[in-house]
Amino acid sequence: MNKVNKKVNAVIIIIGNEILSGRTQDSNVAAISKWLNQLGVELQEVRVIPDIEDSIVKTINEVRKKFKYVFTTGGIGPTHDDITSRSMAKAFNLSYGYHKEAYQILETYYKKFNFNEGRKKMAMLPHKAKLIYNPSSAAPGFSVKNVYCLPGVPSILKSMLGGLNNRIRGGKKILSKTITLRTVESEIAESLEKVQNKYTDVEIGSYPFFKQGKVGVSIVLRSSDQNLISECYKDIKDFIKKKKIETI
Amino acid sequence: MNKVNKKVNAVIIIIGNEILSGRTQDSNVAAISKWLNQLGVELQEVRVIPDIEDSIVKTINEVRKKFKYVFTTGGIGPTHDDITSRSMAKAFNLSYGYHKEAYQILETYYKKFNFNEGRKKMAMLPHKAKLIYNPSSAAPGFSVKNVYCLPGVPSILKSMLGGLNNRIRGGKKILSKTITLRTVESEIAESLEKVQNKYTDVEIGSYPFFKQGKVGVSIVLRSSDQNLISECYKDIKDFIKKKKIETI
Repeated sequence: MNKVNKKVNAVIIIIGNEILSGRTQDSNVAAISKWLNQLGVELQEVRVIPDIEDSIVKTINEVRKKFKYVFTTGGIGPTHDDITSRSMAKAFNLSYGYHKEAYQILETYYKKFNFNEGRKKMAMLPHKAKLIYNPSSAAPGFSVKNVYCLPGVPSILKSMLGGLNNRIRGGKKILSKTITLRTVESEIAESLEKVQNKYTDVEIGSYPFFKQGKVGVSIVLRSSDQNLISECYKDIKDFIKKKKIETI
Repeated sequence: MNKVNKKVNAVIIIIGNEILSGRTQDSNVAAISKWLNQLGVELQEVRVIPDIEDSIVKTINEVRKKFKYVFTTGGIGPTHDDITSRSMAKAFNLSYGYHKEAYQILETYYKKFNFNEGRKKMAMLPHKAKLIYNPSSAAPGFSVKNVYCLPGVPSILKSMLGGLNNRIRGGKKILSKTITLRTVESEIAESLEKVQNKYTDVEIGSYPFFKQGKVGVSIVLRSSDQNLISECYKDIKDFIKKKKIETI
């Protein structure tokens, strides 16, 4: 738990007034986080910021120094409120213009329609940006150094993550195990704290829930060491047996 | 759009490893944001941070100076990973101990069960914290100055917001209107940008979606001025009529 900085870490920046206004429920954080877990990268922070150039530039420049990987979502479409590319160019002090390969991809994709100004705008990227290919709808994402810019539409974003696997160098895969109990947190708090104090390299989370009028607690163990998780799990099983608490 | 700092603003800090790990899908941001809209407060940023004291203290101390209102969610329960109260005391340099009223509330509520150490811990608050009453499960939230600490369980959080209405002083209520079109963004991008440039005090958002194999775009107009929204709406209706775009 205190070894945060030794892990390969990441932050997600959600660029989106629609999340801040409460209109849209984000689901990209969970998708990116689960993908990062598999790659051995720990998501350590998320920020949701408005579609305002100054906010984007300042936030990018702050987090790209603090985290190994930065992922942004949203703002790479064709409309006036899509300002991620332009803001990225400003953050990195790069020129902003048509990216040759992105232009070709979009021109090919849209030739049967009309390759209009809106569509051309999606090829405007920071100079030397590296493309992130989009198998769903052509318009690519892009990266500059350690910042990876992805779209906001969840289905498109998900389809693009796999293509990034080889560009992310994670650490040990983060493993987890969940135990779900028919109890309330205050019945297990003391025992659980003792287990946490014994296993400082396992992150133990306790999450109460209420489902169909019944209460329960999920205990989640996370670590990159499978043996530690197993030992810790055994200690928890021991105390819940003593307390005669049911698992679900 | 450039008048951000004149509005009554707020930030939400989600304290929760379970969101960062991708295990839990947050729904509190949308609930708090919609409630704030009604009170005339604009949510301008969200951060999700881990259950680590140092992160909580630093984040609280950074944002409480930048925003008029700070709302935190999570970390006020009885288990070892619930460290919001202790971290708040540290952030504000206040002593941390039993809060008399909170203790009484919890003692009364739990007298039929067992008022154990875990339950007592929920009465440990920063000195002089003001309670936020909890009509669902007794354990109160609390505020210190402009920082309001709420629980993470969505149903309990929602039940507590109404009790805060009189403690939040918002500005003009933020109004919105949505137009949903059967089109793609790139078909309307240029026209929409012209409308945005004409109505600088209306925030126009454009959100593409894919539902049941069909594409569409939702255009969302937000402003505290109903007349401006109506005028802007009319201009949009004019161009979509010319372009023969269907509304949904």
